[in-house]
Amino acid sequence: MRIEGRNAVLEALRSGVKVRRALLLRGIKPSKNIDEILAYLQQQNIAAEYVQRRDLDQKSDHAAHQGVMIWTAAFEFASLGSIIASTKDATDALVVVLDHVTDPGNLGAIARSAEVFGAAGLIVAKDRAAALTPAAHKAAAGALAHLPVVQVTNISRALQQLKEAGFWIAGASEHATDNVWDTQLSGKIAVVMGAEDKGLSRLVKENCDFLVRLPQSGKVGSLNVAQATTALLYEYIRQTAERTRRSISVSG
Amino acid sequence: MRIEGRNAVLEALRSGVKVRRALLLRGIKPSKNIDEILAYLQQQNIAAEYVQRRDLDQKSDHAAHQGVMIWTAAFEFASLGSIIASTKDATDALVVVLDHVTDPGNLGAIARSAEVFGAAGLIVAKDRAAALTPAAHKAAAGALAHLPVVQVTNISRALQQLKEAGFWIAGASEHATDNVWDTQLSGKIAVVMGAEDKGLSRLVKENCDFLVRLPQSGKVGSLNVAQATTALLYEYIRQTAERTRRSISVSG
Repeated sequence: MRIEGRNAVLEALRSGVKVRRALLLRGIKPSKNIDEILAYLQQQNIAAEYVQRRDLDQKSDHAAHQGVMIWTAAFEFASLGSIIASTKDATDALVVVLDHVTDPGNLGAIARSAEVFGAAGLIVAKDRAAALTPAAHKAAAGALAHLPVVQVTNISRALQQLKEAGFWIAGASEHATDNVWDTQLSGKIAVVMGAEDKGLSRLVKENCDFLVRLPQSGKVGSLNVAQATTALLYEYIRQTAERTRRSISVSG
Repeated sequence: MRIEGRNAVLEALRSGVKVRRALLLRGIKPSKNIDEILAYLQQQNIAAEYVQRRDLDQKSDHAAHQGVMIWTAAFEFASLGSIIASTKDATDALVVVLDHVTDPGNLGAIARSAEVFGAAGLIVAKDRAAALTPAAHKAAAGALAHLPVVQVTNISRALQQLKEAGFWIAGASEHATDNVWDTQLSGKIAVVMGAEDKGLSRLVKENCDFLVRLPQSGKVGSLNVAQATTALLYEYIRQTAERTRRSISVSG
């Protein structure tokens, strides 16, 4: 992906995108932004190529490069197998699965919360789903450098593999009968979130072991999917801590 | 505030901003977007004024009006007194206080979660804080039409008034010693969230009855403020439901 313009490039670099190639206008005037851009490139061991304005203009869609243009490296996805292997011997493990969330900002925000709450990985669909755009990286605020993300062609199949690996599959649905706090959301859990508009697809819902809902008492429809994910991940962490404490007090 | 261009105007209308005045290009070609814009204006009882292109060009900053321009009505803020009055006899009441959150998207997302979780109101600072811009309305997804929002010049003073009205003041801080689930976050509670970069100010922190933190196990700094707010509001709702259930089982 090509990104051009000082602010756009700087924001992308700050959010942690990996750079494949960087072009700068020959003789570009030093400034705070340019210095910061160069520092980030140096961190990533990328040598900026200094070129003529016409080279930049030719490559630019809308001549908004302001003397700066980068190409981002392809995101390095993890494999589902590696996540399953990394959680093989764990009593508690959390995986987040997105059933076609389409907004890159939501994807990034979910990645950030998942990373902060210690999730082992994030599983997303390859098609008809948000990509890891600069907007996603920005919302993720660096989390995508640490959180393993897996891209799968078939969400239901991924859920099957997680089940076989000992995960319980908890689907978030407004139509669930149980409030999430009345369910056991601890141990090895995959939390599955549906698309912004449609929620979980029928097939994915059928592949869930149980469905959970968040309480709602307002007049507005529902929580944003990233907010709902955060609340559910929080509940997972809370129940896990409570169970651990209880087992300590029983064995002690 | 003036908004121009078909998409920007349509997004603002969809997000629920109130319109004061609307200009359309005389003889504008009907289209799906224009029809939807007109339908929203009709809902709000706003008669579009049809004008010449030069009138629109004159009023436009960057000639991006595409034949459509609206002025939004000033947001109708609530008073702190009205929120206190509305929760006077309540056993449980939730108020969210933002100590200079600066990003309008975060403000809107927090408003949405607060409304969904049934908060009695949202209190924000007048200066050096995010305003209710179209971006805030968009993230709020309609919640700002239902949630009372109070603008105060002094957050600490507002906390004092809430205390006098029987609220406990819970400040969110990464440096708190207690995980939020180990505190009593139910009853009449004001949850206070700090700015994106600096957290709670010293004076505001001193005005809190207790501080709470959310668990963090990742490598990234912390949750986004809107996500953190959502997790805390969820915990409030959960504890309130648990306490209610317990009191039913005790009395039954």
